[in-house]
Amino acid sequence: MPDAGAAAVAHLATVDRAGRPHVVPICFVLEGSTLYTAVDEKPKRTRRLKRLENIEANPQVEIVIDHYEEDWSKLWWVRLRGSARIVEDPQAMALLAEKYPQYREQPPAGPVIAVEIVERSEWTSSPS
Amino acid sequence: MPDAGAAAVAHLATVDRAGRPHVVPICFVLEGSTLYTAVDEKPKRTRRLKRLENIEANPQVEIVIDHYEEDWSKLWWVRLRGSARIVEDPQAMALLAEKYPQYREQPPAGPVIAVEIVERSEWTSSPS
Repeated sequence: MPDAGAAAVAHLATVDRAGRPHVVPICFVLEGSTLYTAVDEKPKRTRRLKRLENIEANPQVEIVIDHYEEDWSKLWWVRLRGSARIVEDPQAMALLAEKYPQYREQPPAGPVIAVEIVERSEWTSSPS
Repeated sequence: MPDAGAAAVAHLATVDRAGRPHVVPICFVLEGSTLYTAVDEKPKRTRRLKRLENIEANPQVEIVIDHYEEDWSKLWWVRLRGSARIVEDPQAMALLAEKYPQYREQPPAGPVIAVEIVERSEWTSSPS
């Protein structure tokens, strides 16, 4: 299994008050059993806040980190289920800036989502 | 906005009976206001069926098609919200095989998920 923590992008799913799913691409870092992702400034403010509203209503989240290429014998994914909190965490911001040079130039303005991972599953299409 | 329908991968979020989100990478085709994705054979049968179980319990789904690259001025996503049905649809299979040569070699064994799109939103980091 490749190093999922090194992937640039993951996808975070949350659920809104009406029981509808919401999914967004995220930048992230894994640190122990916690995944951190920051909310960065984007033009569509309402969209940006939806994941935060959802987490406040229902902290249960799922994240998938996956790899795609045209050779379907080389696909893999890692799925993380956990409980999310919205935090202000300078250390998480430092970890994100370490992984993403873009964050060193322009730190994300929003808060950090910290996901305590309670379940991890993985799959690979490669037989080895 | 680039052609989201040409992207190889999207991410589908569903919700289970307990109100927990589930997210999976999918291959897909867009045809009019419908998105089709097939369930293909994979070793982890329980995982493969989870999205189908979820859709049977709650047809509300969300899909995001997004583009990532290191130049964060070139990011974009298209988000589709809709209602999903599980169908046997040879025409959808043909559309998928047209887009994905891998499906022409080995057609997916499982059913098709047809999502009737009721809401579309999009975002790009590019100012133009």
